[in-house]
Amino acid sequence: MAESLTADLNDDALDARRVTAILDAVDAGDTGLLTALLEPLHAADIADVLEQISPSERRDLVALWSGEIDGEILSELDDAIRDEVIAALSPTELSEAMRELDTDDVVDILEDMDVPQQGIILDALDDADRFAVQQALGYPEGSAGRLMQREVVIAPEHWTVGEAIDHLRNSDRLPDQFYHVILVDPRMKPLGYATLGRILSSKRETKLRDILEDGFRTVKATEEEEDVAYFFNQYHMISCPVVDADDRLVGVITIDDAMNVLDEEHHEDVLLLAGVGEESSIADGIRETVRQRFPWLFVNLIAANLSALVIGQFHGTISAIVALAALMPIVASMGGNAGTQSLTVAVRALATRDLTTSNAMRVVRREAAVGVINGLGFASVMAIVGWLGYGSAMLGVVIGMAMIVNLFVAALAGTLVPLTLNRMGLDPALSSGTFVTTMTDLMGFFVSLGLATLVLV
Amino acid sequence: MAESLTADLNDDALDARRVTAILDAVDAGDTGLLTALLEPLHAADIADVLEQISPSERRDLVALWSGEIDGEILSELDDAIRDEVIAALSPTELSEAMRELDTDDVVDILEDMDVPQQGIILDALDDADRFAVQQALGYPEGSAGRLMQREVVIAPEHWTVGEAIDHLRNSDRLPDQFYHVILVDPRMKPLGYATLGRILSSKRETKLRDILEDGFRTVKATEEEEDVAYFFNQYHMISCPVVDADDRLVGVITIDDAMNVLDEEHHEDVLLLAGVGEESSIADGIRETVRQRFPWLFVNLIAANLSALVIGQFHGTISAIVALAALMPIVASMGGNAGTQSLTVAVRALATRDLTTSNAMRVVRREAAVGVINGLGFASVMAIVGWLGYGSAMLGVVIGMAMIVNLFVAALAGTLVPLTLNRMGLDPALSSGTFVTTMTDLMGFFVSLGLATLVLV
Repeated sequence: MAESLTADLNDDALDARRVTAILDAVDAGDTGLLTALLEPLHAADIADVLEQISPSERRDLVALWSGEIDGEILSELDDAIRDEVIAALSPTELSEAMRELDTDDVVDILEDMDVPQQGIILDALDDADRFAVQQALGYPEGSAGRLMQREVVIAPEHWTVGEAIDHLRNSDRLPDQFYHVILVDPRMKPLGYATLGRILSSKRETKLRDILEDGFRTVKATEEEEDVAYFFNQYHMISCPVVDADDRLVGVITIDDAMNVLDEEHHEDVLLLAGVGEESSIADGIRETVRQRFPWLFVNLIAANLSALVIGQFHGTISAIVALAALMPIVASMGGNAGTQSLTVAVRALATRDLTTSNAMRVVRREAAVGVINGLGFASVMAIVGWLGYGSAMLGVVIGMAMIVNLFVAALAGTLVPLTLNRMGLDPALSSGTFVTTMTDLMGFFVSLGLATLVLV
Repeated sequence: MAESLTADLNDDALDARRVTAILDAVDAGDTGLLTALLEPLHAADIADVLEQISPSERRDLVALWSGEIDGEILSELDDAIRDEVIAALSPTELSEAMRELDTDDVVDILEDMDVPQQGIILDALDDADRFAVQQALGYPEGSAGRLMQREVVIAPEHWTVGEAIDHLRNSDRLPDQFYHVILVDPRMKPLGYATLGRILSSKRETKLRDILEDGFRTVKATEEEEDVAYFFNQYHMISCPVVDADDRLVGVITIDDAMNVLDEEHHEDVLLLAGVGEESSIADGIRETVRQRFPWLFVNLIAANLSALVIGQFHGTISAIVALAALMPIVASMGGNAGTQSLTVAVRALATRDLTTSNAMRVVRREAAVGVINGLGFASVMAIVGWLGYGSAMLGVVIGMAMIVNLFVAALAGTLVPLTLNRMGLDPALSSGTFVTTMTDLMGFFVSLGLATLVLV
C-alpha cells in the first residue's frame, strides 16, 4: 500500500507534494508509509523536511521516526532544529547515531552543545574516536583543527606506486573520502602529495616522489577556517594537509568542508549587512526572531531619533518653507542607497581579498568621484523638479547641492567604514549598514536644511 | 641580483610588499626582476595583482611581460580586465595561451567575447579542441553543458579493478582532475561510478560494479549551472556526470567548478540586493561604475519623489505641527530597516531552498507577527519620546502607531516581494531592495501624516 501511494512521486526528489504526503503520514501515525516516503531521500533532504515543517509537526514526526534518525541527518540539520531533535532522541538512539559519523562531523555537532550534553555523547563513542574528538575540541572554535578529519592516507617518501597500492589494499580502515596520498618524512612532516588519478595511471615501479603535484600547500591547525576556505577557492584545491606548530601532519581538510565554510561565511556576511543576527534561520520561531532583530532595529531607532533632533533644530526654516519637509527625505534616501552600494561592493571585495592596502586608496577615490558625478546628474534633475513641481528652481538647486554633498559622504562612509572595521580585525559586514545609513541620514537632513536656511530663508 | 631583492619576501605569498616591489620593477622596466617576483605566484594570485593595480600600471606590466601571460592567468582574470589584457597580447601569444587550457576554461573565456574575437581564438585551437569548444558553445549560457569538461574517464560495466587500472596506465591523455571512473553501458548511458579511493584499495579481480557509490546522480547538459551548484552543495558531491537528452554521457562537472558557480551566485545576489549591477567589480573604472549605479539610483530618485508627493499632500498638517517633519522620517527609516531584514532572510532562504511552498505561508505569518511585536516595543519608546522630547504624548502615540503599521507592511513586503519574483521565475534578489524601501517610505510618510491629520489637527 505504501508503494502505491508513493509510486506517483518522483524517485528521490524532495518537492511540495512529498512534504504534504509526509505530513499526512505523520497525521495518520503511519510509520510504514512515513519510512517509505523518507527512506529514498538523501540525509540532507530529510534534514530540509525537518527544517521546513512547523515545530509541532516536527515533534510528531520525530516521535514516530526517532529510531531511523541517523548521524548523517543530525549533521545536516540547522543548529536550532538539531538541539530540538536531539532532545527528543533516547540516549541509545543518540549514541548509535553518533557512532557512525566521521570525527569531524561529531566535532561539528558537539561544539554547539553545552558541557553535560557533550559528556553524554562523548561517553557513547569508542575510545579511539573519543580521543580524536577531544583532541579536535582542543583547537580554537572556527579553526582548521576543528574542520579537519584526522584520518589521513600517508606514505613514506621512498615508496613506489605499487607499494602504495598494496598498502591501501591491506588497510582495513580508510577515510570515506580521500583524493591524495600524502608523502611524509619519518617525523611526519608532509613533503608533497600525489593525486589518486596520477597514482592509478602510473606504473607500479614509479616512485611516488616523481609524480607529486606542483604547488603543494599545507595549513596550520590553528589557521581560521575562513582563511582555509579562501585557499581552497583561490588555488582550486581539492584537499589540504593540516599540520601542527611543529609542521607535523595532524589531519586533512577536504573541499566539501571548505565549500561549506565558504557558504556559511557568505550567509553571515549577507545577514550582518542587513542587520540580522548571523545565526538566524528560516526555521526560527517568532520569539527567537524578535530576539535577533529587535536590538539592531533599536540601534536604528536611536540613530533615527538623532536625525529627528537635527531636523528639530531647523524648526523655523521648515515653518517658513514647508516643501522642505517633503524634499529633504529625498536627499537622505539617495545617500542611504548610494552608501549601501559602495558598502556592499567594498564588503564583497574585502571578503574575496580583491580590496587590499595596494588598491584601497584608488577605490576610495573612485567611489568619491562616482558619488560626485552621480550627484551632479541627480542635482540637475532636482533643479528641474523644484522649478516645475514646487515653483522654485532655487529650492531644487538647494536640494540638488545637498544631494551632491550627501552622495560624496555616502561614497566615503560606504568605503571607509568597512575598511576601518577590517583594519581593526572586525568583520567588515558587522553593522556597517546601520552605521552608513545613520551618517547619510544625518548629513542628508543637516545639509539640506542648513543650505536652505542660508540661501532661502 | 633579482634573488637578493626578492629574498626577504615570503616564499610565494601575495602581499602589499610584493605588489609594491612588482610595481617598482615595472617602473624600472626590469623584466628579469618582474619575472622573479611573479613566477613563484599561483596564476590566481598573478590575476589578483593585475586586478589590483591601476589601468596604466596594468598596461605597463602587460607590455613588459606579455610573453609570460599564460592561459591559466587569463582564465583567473575578471572579465573586464581580461578583455584589456587579451587586447594587449599578440595573436601568437594569445593562441599559445589558449592551447594549453582545458576546453571548459576556453569556453569560459570565449563566451564573454564578441564573434570576431571568438573566431581568432577558435582558429588557434587544434581541430579536436575547436570541435569540443564549439559543441559546448551550442549549449545555453549558464548551463551544465557550458560548465562541464568533455574529457571523461569511463569503463564498460563488466570491467574489473585490474582492467580499469591497466586501461588508465595505457591512456595517453587523461583529464587534469578526475575523482571517479564512470561505468557506462554500450550506448554510453552512465550506470554509476566508483571513487578512485575505492578502486585503489580493492583487489585487481574485484568487479567495478561491486564497488559503485550509493546515491549516484547525473545532471542534464541543459540544466542551469546554479541548480548544479546546489546539487553539489546539498549532496556533498565531488564530481557529477553530465548527460544529453538521450541520457548519454557527454561530460563531467567537478566540484571546483561548482564551488566557483556558488561563489558567483552569492556575489550576484549580494550586489543585486544592494542595487549594484551584478557584473560590477572593484577593478572597474569611474565611467563603468557610474554607468552601473546611476540607473538604480535613478529609480530610487523617482521613488523618493513619489514619497515627497505624498508628504506634499499634508502641507497643512505639517504647517500646524512642524515636529512631524522631524518625526515622520523615523517611521520610514524603521520600516526600511525591518523590510531589509525580512527581505534578506527570505532571499537567502530561497537561494538555499530552505524557503519553499511548504513553509512560505508560515514564514509570512512569522514575519508579520515579528513586525507587530517589534512595532509594539518601538511604539512604547516613541510615546515616551513624544511626551518627554516634544511635549506631546499623543504625538508620540501617533508616531508609534504609524510604526506598528509600517513594520507590519515591511514584514509583508520583505517576504512577499522576493517570493513573488521567485514564482515569476525571476531572481528574487533583483531590485527587491528598492521596491521594499519604496513601499516602506510611502507607507511610513502616509500613515504618520494621515494619522496625525485625523487625530491631532
